[in-house]
Amino acid sequence: MDDAAPIAGEASGGGRRGRADRGGGAAARRAARTGGGPGTQQTFIKRQIKVYEVLDEEGLALIENNADTVLEEVGIEFRDDPEALELWKNAGADVKGSRVHFPRGLPRSLLRTAPSQFMQHARNPERSVQIGGNATVFAPVYGPPFVRDLDGNRRYATIEDFRNFVKLAYMAPSIHHSGGTVCEPVDVPVNKRHLDMVHAHIKYSDKPFMGSVTAPERAQDTVDMCKILFGEEFIQNNTVLTSLINANSPMVFDDTMLGALKVYARNNQACIVTPFILAGAMSPVTVAGTLTQVLAEVLAGAALTQLVRPGAPVLFGTFASSISMQSGAPTFGTPEPSLVSYGAAQLARRLGLPFRTGGSLCASKIPDAQAAYESANTLNSTLLAGANFVLHSAGWLEGGLASCYEKFMMDVDQLGMAQKLAQGVDLSENGQAMDAIRQVGPGSHFLGCDHTQANFQTAFYRSTVADNNSFEQWEAEGRKTAPQRANELARRWLETYEAPPLDPGIEDGINDFIAKKKESMPDAFT
Amino acid sequence: MDDAAPIAGEASGGGRRGRADRGGGAAARRAARTGGGPGTQQTFIKRQIKVYEVLDEEGLALIENNADTVLEEVGIEFRDDPEALELWKNAGADVKGSRVHFPRGLPRSLLRTAPSQFMQHARNPERSVQIGGNATVFAPVYGPPFVRDLDGNRRYATIEDFRNFVKLAYMAPSIHHSGGTVCEPVDVPVNKRHLDMVHAHIKYSDKPFMGSVTAPERAQDTVDMCKILFGEEFIQNNTVLTSLINANSPMVFDDTMLGALKVYARNNQACIVTPFILAGAMSPVTVAGTLTQVLAEVLAGAALTQLVRPGAPVLFGTFASSISMQSGAPTFGTPEPSLVSYGAAQLARRLGLPFRTGGSLCASKIPDAQAAYESANTLNSTLLAGANFVLHSAGWLEGGLASCYEKFMMDVDQLGMAQKLAQGVDLSENGQAMDAIRQVGPGSHFLGCDHTQANFQTAFYRSTVADNNSFEQWEAEGRKTAPQRANELARRWLETYEAPPLDPGIEDGINDFIAKKKESMPDAFT
Repeated sequence: MDDAAPIAGEASGGGRRGRADRGGGAAARRAARTGGGPGTQQTFIKRQIKVYEVLDEEGLALIENNADTVLEEVGIEFRDDPEALELWKNAGADVKGSRVHFPRGLPRSLLRTAPSQFMQHARNPERSVQIGGNATVFAPVYGPPFVRDLDGNRRYATIEDFRNFVKLAYMAPSIHHSGGTVCEPVDVPVNKRHLDMVHAHIKYSDKPFMGSVTAPERAQDTVDMCKILFGEEFIQNNTVLTSLINANSPMVFDDTMLGALKVYARNNQACIVTPFILAGAMSPVTVAGTLTQVLAEVLAGAALTQLVRPGAPVLFGTFASSISMQSGAPTFGTPEPSLVSYGAAQLARRLGLPFRTGGSLCASKIPDAQAAYESANTLNSTLLAGANFVLHSAGWLEGGLASCYEKFMMDVDQLGMAQKLAQGVDLSENGQAMDAIRQVGPGSHFLGCDHTQANFQTAFYRSTVADNNSFEQWEAEGRKTAPQRANELARRWLETYEAPPLDPGIEDGINDFIAKKKESMPDAFT
Repeated sequence: MDDAAPIAGEASGGGRRGRADRGGGAAARRAARTGGGPGTQQTFIKRQIKVYEVLDEEGLALIENNADTVLEEVGIEFRDDPEALELWKNAGADVKGSRVHFPRGLPRSLLRTAPSQFMQHARNPERSVQIGGNATVFAPVYGPPFVRDLDGNRRYATIEDFRNFVKLAYMAPSIHHSGGTVCEPVDVPVNKRHLDMVHAHIKYSDKPFMGSVTAPERAQDTVDMCKILFGEEFIQNNTVLTSLINANSPMVFDDTMLGALKVYARNNQACIVTPFILAGAMSPVTVAGTLTQVLAEVLAGAALTQLVRPGAPVLFGTFASSISMQSGAPTFGTPEPSLVSYGAAQLARRLGLPFRTGGSLCASKIPDAQAAYESANTLNSTLLAGANFVLHSAGWLEGGLASCYEKFMMDVDQLGMAQKLAQGVDLSENGQAMDAIRQVGPGSHFLGCDHTQANFQTAFYRSTVADNNSFEQWEAEGRKTAPQRANELARRWLETYEAPPLDPGIEDGINDFIAKKKESMPDAFT
């Protein structure tokens, strides 16, 4: 769990990256010294524990066969994108209008050129992450138009909130990735928002990040800004962006998402092709039926990246939720989405693609017990499923409508626990602790023994939010709830935040790019 | 998940059991009709999902070998119990004072006579539970001297609270067992408390329950009351009690626990031999070291039951927590106890004993997000470890110092989710839902399709506590937190509670027994 292992065959540097300062952990270390700081940054998780599986060979083959039948008989729509249809026609698919029917096995065979794992490079090489294999990467919440702020208000998100969440994610030791739309900054014009968002990821963090997908030209702007940051040559040979391409389930991809997908794939940047599923509405009410549809949609969408550029990195994504059959509202942390996550992870591994699922999802409107039960259920299945990339791993509230500061801090604590769990059982001689058992013997205690003294600092995960004190002490300290402690922690982190150093030449280049882009068009708010 | 499967070789009835009315579900059904009722009672979980494992063959053999070394070289103390020491001497162990050293493999070979699974009978045969194999049985919190009541007060528990928790556990569909000391009724004299507690389990529930372990004569009273309830012959051939025998870790059993163990084993009743471990204090600060000590203690304690009566049912128990190395306070829901649970479950299966661990453990003083994160982490690992008997599965708060009504209701909801998860993925034709996918096709929705209509009532787990509505609706309904909704639910259940019918002859017999016992001794409060 110490350092990012370089992946064979990937360039380990290049372009202007050498100029980026590696001191990204300095602020964290300073904050830690002042007390209540975030602690030492961790690299992405290299799981040393097994994955958990819910399907056997027979079940997997059944679902794969059914998905092939869906692709062949029902087909997938690629709407308003003649180029995508042309690519499919040339690849041998049967195209009628915008509906594409696939010969059995075609998408799967196209995906043989996609890498099973790759590195996403960060401007600080220590923060680069492996996507795929035994790696798990945690990224923050994505997409909410609202925030639940530190004064307890629910309101529209601003660019200031956006920057705050980037800062908190930068400081959080167990967040490995800066994410994308950590909240939707609705105070910035829609057509210029992506520039400020990407700028914030570059300036306020040195962790890897995601690109804009709301229009092909915004995806291109993201790529162009990365050319300034990493150097043009570097990004053609390396992946520096991992971006979210949702299917319009059931069985539709629209031109917005397809446009962004093509830009990223063409530039060798990673797409996460994700059916956004509220089971019962966008897919059947069963786990097996949902898995079938998810697989069919991913096969179609992910294979398209290989038609655009063979070898472009692409992830098998799934966003699994069920709806309440009483109200139609989405529900989270329930058993069925966990089963979908476990099953989809198995399907992704058989396909040889990195896998995205889960996070810390919940339907609660406040960071209460409901939020925590649901988030913990989701995160536990996410980790044990062997998810490689985890969006929404901190801060998600209210079915994704709000980014919550307090929940962010509580979730980050849970991510640290997940990272520790993923280390598995230490069976070294020190781990076996036979000396301790011999030294202490029956009826005594281990508090002062040599082995405990030698190991106590790293022995157990140390929660940043939990109060483990006695009732009396907790009462004397003001009867604080977990969100209240999380609130104090968020304020302290934001007060002690220091930006990671950024080469002034690069910063000027990016500022110039943004200024020119913004000048080139009037503000648009819809 | 429908009915309790009878176990081959076990008598399916006998004694006076035929007289017990089977109408235990009537009150539940009535309450359900009035709205907000608990719903249909479920039998114990028959897991159709795999267990999760954290140790490979090599690791398991290493820990087993180390445990044998501890038993041989360090030994286990059996304090103030000459009979236990005599039994060990006769079995071939090396006894010096109260310290017993075991020839390698002796306890393991003695345990060959212990059943790998058995039925614990309830007075309502529909509520009998399988202990072991692929069964998981949920029982309530055990032991707290305090309650957190429905008015938000933390105070000493009373017999009225005790009865309330028995009633709630009786009504909860996903609680399969009435448990034991659901809270400590401190308003009843210490030496008579067990009579009122066992009485409450018999009168206010028809689910199986646990016996007193605070003195050998109280264990005997429990057995004698069960003779009245089930018939003397029945209980000699069948197990109707599963009771908790804690080791005084490290490596000590005291005469109180040994006395109760001997009474239950002699009467063919089940003991759960459980090292109560706060790792770092009662065991080494490492997972492997803790597992080694747990295994050694269980081997010694469980094997003793077989010396008392070969064939007596006994469980491999573990209560795993870590302490905060800063304050010494116990912590819950952290990664290390989860690893201990997974590993201990593997060791128990290799030993061929039913396994107890976990529950819904937390350190929080209130039913807030901390309580929920910690409880969910614990419950997830409990279920996936394949625990057979789960104490503390609902209501546990404050490191076990308080039984909380609101937390009880929230936990019960989570247990229902666990029960659904354990069903795994339905791969039947209906589960595959190909007709639904064909009928709906691209760009439509599944809400109204035939398959959804046919399945919507049972498709997804329906939470009793979660609020999945929109922010606006939640706000309009009073911005209630999860504990507030749980509070309302607990009040509604208690208002609609109806006792399961009990044969008047049996009831009189038990009342007479209690009255005579109480008259026979003065009250004692220490």
